Amino acid sequence: MRTPAQNAHLALLLEVASTPKPGNVDRHRDLEDLRFEHFLAGAVGSQHGLELAADGAAIGPAFERAVAGMAKQEGDNTQFGALLLLTPLVRAAVTDLSQPADLSQSTDPSQSAVESVVDETTVADAAAFYRAFEHVDVHVADPPADMAPLDVRRGSDAIPALEKRGLTLVDVMEQSVPGDDVAREWVTGFERSFTAAERLASADGPLPDRAAAVFLSLLAERPDTLVATKHGEGVAREVTDRASELAAQDALSTDRDAVEVFADDLVNRGINPGTTADITAAALFIALESELVSV
Amino acid sequence: MRTPAQNAHLALLLEVASTPKPGNVDRHRDLEDLRFEHFLAGAVGSQHGLELAADGAAIGPAFERAVAGMAKQEGDNTQFGALLLLTPLVRAAVTDLSQPADLSQSTDPSQSAVESVVDETTVADAAAFYRAFEHVDVHVADPPADMAPLDVRRGSDAIPALEKRGLTLVDVMEQSVPGDDVAREWVTGFERSFTAAERLASADGPLPDRAAAVFLSLLAERPDTLVATKHGEGVAREVTDRASELAAQDALSTDRDAVEVFADDLVNRGINPGTTADITAAALFIALESELVSV
Repeated sequence: MRTPAQNAHLALLLEVASTPKPGNVDRHRDLEDLRFEHFLAGAVGSQHGLELAADGAAIGPAFERAVAGMAKQEGDNTQFGALLLLTPLVRAAVTDLSQPADLSQSTDPSQSAVESVVDETTVADAAAFYRAFEHVDVHVADPPADMAPLDVRRGSDAIPALEKRGLTLVDVMEQSVPGDDVAREWVTGFERSFTAAERLASADGPLPDRAAAVFLSLLAERPDTLVATKHGEGVAREVTDRASELAAQDALSTDRDAVEVFADDLVNRGINPGTTADITAAALFIALESELVSV
Repeated sequence: MRTPAQNAHLALLLEVASTPKPGNVDRHRDLEDLRFEHFLAGAVGSQHGLELAADGAAIGPAFERAVAGMAKQEGDNTQFGALLLLTPLVRAAVTDLSQPADLSQSTDPSQSAVESVVDETTVADAAAFYRAFEHVDVHVADPPADMAPLDVRRGSDAIPALEKRGLTLVDVMEQSVPGDDVAREWVTGFERSFTAAERLASADGPLPDRAAAVFLSLLAERPDTLVATKHGEGVAREVTDRASELAAQDALSTDRDAVEVFADDLVNRGINPGTTADITAAALFIALESELVSV
């Protein structure tokens, strides 16, 4: 049996190994300055933070530690969003809600368990989340004017404003929706992650092939928010429309070349749907931890 | 900074990600029942055993734990030989020889340090090594008649014979040479692993590309002992001759297609030079840990 922290680590590895994952680094594709090995090293580096989450540390500091470790490779940001999903999911997998003090029992990570985990986050967790941005460059949108003091890119400089407004980490996530579908998972009980885990379970073939199919299905259902932030809503919509056509014809089975062409095209245009990859990693964790799938 | 156990873990991941690695699972190739994701899960599973080695546990039990964790995936044996090299190397990286009791200082893993580690192994370490064979199917040659009671395939049934003869783990390794080039590393101060680490340092390009070049150079210099055991000395010699021709012309730079053809040919014939991959993983660890290379 792997521990929840190990399953989270393996989910990160399986996510990047799955191919084709249009626009992202995958088993068959590197980006110019962001290569496969950076993701391997990022996953290894995140391990101690994920273990902290499993051992009962507060979510914010565990996440910050995971990010600090992840960032110790030369590709800079590889798995920030994925870790923001995995940290509370790992905690949910070791929390027996009937006995909140008992972290020794591993349980399937349920939506209600992870909702409780995020609802219990504090202002201190939010402060640690802001500190995490000092370890790595994360691409985010400009906040609205009244939120400028809380721009995550200010890192720990934003903490006094955070404390003044008394915002917990889940409050910060609520402020980030819409426009950030990782944050959206936090406020919707990780709805898409759990649905995608079910899709992984019902798909056929080796797990990386299933993950590629689930990635395409996620990309087809909502425009990727990282693509929207970097390239605009129009491009994000175009990518989703194309993914939607391919998913509708089950192209990974019926016309794999078409998906490969799509993947190469997005890589060439520098369009990487990173949010969709983050949710794929979360789904892999849920499916592994709940033994819906195996490797 | 990654810990020695994390660098060992990353070495396993980089080894399998390197391509082309003729005959082996690599970033671009799976074998029929042994796929890339099995190696990812094997690396994750081995983590706690590698941590035991770093924390000062005896080498035999740490290795057995690493193998037991590695084997918890559906491809069966992925990294047995690599772990047999990495376990003493990890210990050597945390052992300050001037202060043997101090495991808190990380040092470059030197040949003399790892020689001391293997020289200090005991009969109990050998017993744990035999138990490790119960977790996984390892392809080994038939032992000579006088060694039949010590056939590793007997697992813990061989332990009484082992204890009667008073054989330590390094003694068992000495008995396995010639015919097993992983064992040979144990009795030669990990000579080829350290030489290969230097080659990784002096090669150009991303680390997985360097590892592929070093794999080819290792395959060119000595017939792979796993190939000899499975397919005979003649086949092992043929593979080495072909690797030697390709290495001599620096084919990975000058005629990469020729190496890819060689790789596909070996995969199609079921010839996997696993021992050479094990030494490549050991070299990656030494090079990472000594900061000769970075990711």
